[in-house]
Amino acid sequence: MGIDHLFDLATELKPAGEDRWIAHTSDAYWNMVGPFGGLVGALLFKSAYAHPKREGQPLALTVNFCAAIAKGEMSIEARPARSNRSTQHWTMTMLQDGECVATATAMFGKRPETFAHRPASAPDVPAFEDVPRMPWPGSGWIERFDLRFAEGQPFWAERSEEPSSARSTLWIAADPPRAMDFVGLAALTDIFFGRIIHVRQQMVPFGTVSLTSYFHATEADLSALGSTPVLGTADARIFERGFHDQSAELWSADGRLLATSHQLVYYRDPA
Amino acid sequence: MGIDHLFDLATELKPAGEDRWIAHTSDAYWNMVGPFGGLVGALLFKSAYAHPKREGQPLALTVNFCAAIAKGEMSIEARPARSNRSTQHWTMTMLQDGECVATATAMFGKRPETFAHRPASAPDVPAFEDVPRMPWPGSGWIERFDLRFAEGQPFWAERSEEPSSARSTLWIAADPPRAMDFVGLAALTDIFFGRIIHVRQQMVPFGTVSLTSYFHATEADLSALGSTPVLGTADARIFERGFHDQSAELWSADGRLLATSHQLVYYRDPA
Repeated sequence: MGIDHLFDLATELKPAGEDRWIAHTSDAYWNMVGPFGGLVGALLFKSAYAHPKREGQPLALTVNFCAAIAKGEMSIEARPARSNRSTQHWTMTMLQDGECVATATAMFGKRPETFAHRPASAPDVPAFEDVPRMPWPGSGWIERFDLRFAEGQPFWAERSEEPSSARSTLWIAADPPRAMDFVGLAALTDIFFGRIIHVRQQMVPFGTVSLTSYFHATEADLSALGSTPVLGTADARIFERGFHDQSAELWSADGRLLATSHQLVYYRDPA
Repeated sequence: MGIDHLFDLATELKPAGEDRWIAHTSDAYWNMVGPFGGLVGALLFKSAYAHPKREGQPLALTVNFCAAIAKGEMSIEARPARSNRSTQHWTMTMLQDGECVATATAMFGKRPETFAHRPASAPDVPAFEDVPRMPWPGSGWIERFDLRFAEGQPFWAERSEEPSSARSTLWIAADPPRAMDFVGLAALTDIFFGRIIHVRQQMVPFGTVSLTSYFHATEADLSALGSTPVLGTADARIFERGFHDQSAELWSADGRLLATSHQLVYYRDPA
């Protein structure tokens, strides 16, 4: 934990003029052909969240992954589009070599005490300690997380011709442990593998193209979590002509819904 | 039907220079204190969709409602942020008197034939003809739709102290009828009342602040629907400190998932 955690190094933003930051890709959070999408989302989120003009708690974040990102430097522009009494809207753009590689919007606001109602409840699964860690022989971002699938793990002893369930439920902890905060939570909203590889039970070309996250916790709620694991669940409704939807929930170990996220995922048939 | 339909008049965009359009609010689609949110979403969607540089089928749309919109003129800027071989990303801004009132992003792309799988299925409800139309004594946008609640109607004979179900399922038809297209579908993704009035069984201050829609149909699919009603269902997971989430599905009468949408809704306790 602390400022030297790989995640904090990977999400470092250097001020580069008004409304502008410089970031760098991180080998520690590299995916097969680009950065871990959750890290790109976390960088774009942080470009507004860490901006001196930001007011209010995080509420909503949309990240559009526009093009492949190469290893190296990225420039991020983050501008307040509108500030009201109780909410504030932001527009962000990530550039590499002058070309747009991602766009994003974010919203912040006051979170007053109001009527509360929580019809959704956390999945009922064995405790983190009682689920084995997903083995991962490779390097990159997956090594940075201790993922423990209680349901719908992405490895199959024998492929069936029928599509498998699109649903996964898993415990998620940073490795090494890191205290939860909003930049970390923003990254976790994109931690779920594309549902296409779960239903097809095989690797296919895929990638998130648009991700929207809603935050239901406050900074105080996240501080109270420390580095305890969170419980995530993801599912999908439809796989159709190259794209599928995906919806996810992130729960604290004591059953509080921290964030929900939705995404559209590009996929193609295996070659 | 035809070019004189009120919806087509309300979504008219006049070219006003490169990447810029002028629109006007419509009394026919007015809400209590501003335009029907679905109409604002449809205008922002159309600003990219009708742009001469747009390539590909609609895939994703996010609309952020940043501030109140007054009756009168709106200026919309729509710019392609990035065009790739198979996808294209757009950024849009709606201004009124030079101030940002809404931001949006949209994504378009090719929809090749691929593996398809549809784990979600349409709600099982009585036919459109067998459900009574929701009575509506007022004027404005609700008059423009024939809404028939099969489940979770927003009127309550007697208020209970316990929160009601957040789920509604309803048939939706334009009144007068209008052939389905993507501009119309974009509007329908925001047709569902804020779940807060369903669970509280009373009117409270509320409004959508961010809306994300994913499109699972193609232009050919929508053309084939003509003006037949669509079936919509909406639900929510959490109502917490002034904001709740909301997820919705729009189905064709023959059971095809046309679009899914997700939104964050602002609410306050009644005065």
